[in-house]
Amino acid sequence: MIKTVVIGSGNVAQHLIKVIERSAGIQLLQAYARNLGELKKLLPEEQIATSYNEIKEADVYIIAVSDGAIANVAAQLPFSGRFVVHTSGSVSMTEPDGKNRRGVFYPLQTLSKNKEVNFQMVPLCLETEYKEDFTLLEQLAKAFSGSVYAINSEQRRALHVAAVFVSNFVNNMYAIGSEICRDNAIDFTILKPLIQETADKILSLSPLQAQTGPAVRNDTETIAKHLYFLKDERHKELYKLLSESIQYNAKKL
Amino acid sequence: MIKTVVIGSGNVAQHLIKVIERSAGIQLLQAYARNLGELKKLLPEEQIATSYNEIKEADVYIIAVSDGAIANVAAQLPFSGRFVVHTSGSVSMTEPDGKNRRGVFYPLQTLSKNKEVNFQMVPLCLETEYKEDFTLLEQLAKAFSGSVYAINSEQRRALHVAAVFVSNFVNNMYAIGSEICRDNAIDFTILKPLIQETADKILSLSPLQAQTGPAVRNDTETIAKHLYFLKDERHKELYKLLSESIQYNAKKL
Repeated sequence: MIKTVVIGSGNVAQHLIKVIERSAGIQLLQAYARNLGELKKLLPEEQIATSYNEIKEADVYIIAVSDGAIANVAAQLPFSGRFVVHTSGSVSMTEPDGKNRRGVFYPLQTLSKNKEVNFQMVPLCLETEYKEDFTLLEQLAKAFSGSVYAINSEQRRALHVAAVFVSNFVNNMYAIGSEICRDNAIDFTILKPLIQETADKILSLSPLQAQTGPAVRNDTETIAKHLYFLKDERHKELYKLLSESIQYNAKKL
Repeated sequence: MIKTVVIGSGNVAQHLIKVIERSAGIQLLQAYARNLGELKKLLPEEQIATSYNEIKEADVYIIAVSDGAIANVAAQLPFSGRFVVHTSGSVSMTEPDGKNRRGVFYPLQTLSKNKEVNFQMVPLCLETEYKEDFTLLEQLAKAFSGSVYAINSEQRRALHVAAVFVSNFVNNMYAIGSEICRDNAIDFTILKPLIQETADKILSLSPLQAQTGPAVRNDTETIAKHLYFLKDERHKELYKLLSESIQYNAKKL
């Protein structure tokens, strides 16, 4: 039984708490949060620590707080020599205090408060300072996900940037599409099959093979019509840059 | 039995030919292409017309050619008073020659040559010059899709622009993500669950609710790290603009 403590109460912490509670072979000894509020709906009060001194001895401590707070939390832990990982895509393994054995447990997924996620499908990117800890962290990861990867800090930084493009920026495209629909009295629902199919295509085609639309066809007339249609300067600018990006990529095919 | 003729041999024409051949209540009288080549793998030669004069009398003619060629094809049809629709998102209903009864049959989907698509899930956007034709076109559309919409030319223009954002530009984000992976010796496969989940979230959350990532968190430190990481000026510029777009949208919540 791997004993864990989750430190944090935000999105990622809450998802982790839920999945650990569901998984065999892993025990959630405690969760730590500055105040009970957020965690009370997930755990009984006696399982929540609100001061660092209450934190019990565990095999793995998972710091799931905002990137900027990780180093500070790690420095405040009142113990040393134990195994402490963080969950961030963009913080290097060695940024936090070195008094504990360090590691990274980065779930490569978009986790929202109001949307459950199947952790079996979440790629977990692992990195540890010491080899022995990797074995333990891998065991933990495999208890709740079918895809576990060894990813070093440099690769993780690249992955995180790539993830921003394929998820956060993609969602922004959905937001703009939804806004255009709203402004023209069209139900955004009509675009959802297209959104699903665009994501599905990438499972069997490369992004360059999957590209369709006026830009890749060099259909300058349609592009001009679309730019004329768009009144929002921000959208116009994005339309131009993204069309150029598509045309630039198409040359690589 | 609705008798149809498909004019064209590209992506959309081929998908339409296949779905008409599969659907009950609709007959594909003929397909027209300037040369047999592309269609020979789909249809017996006697079902392919290569000159406009060979085109038989049908209930609906579907012009599925590139946007720029629609008007020209419509003008060359050697008959009048018949019902002729095009499949374009960005060409207005009345742009083609008015000697025939006009209409639009716009499948709002990304159709690639090497990827089959379930037409039941493809929203079909219909518009006709005459009311009676709408009934016929609707009957045709419902024979192969579960989602059929009446969409006028103005709405269709907006929809097409929105579709470019949520599909073509989204696919460009996948291409950039894939490039970043390749340049850092990471298998792009690791990003696919994230791509799927990002698209799935939109089925239950609004795009503004679904937004995650450094921009919406105003995590300026991570944004600065990512901009420093990106060496491609195009990617840097897109990263900046898209982050601003996310932050601008977040204010609307």
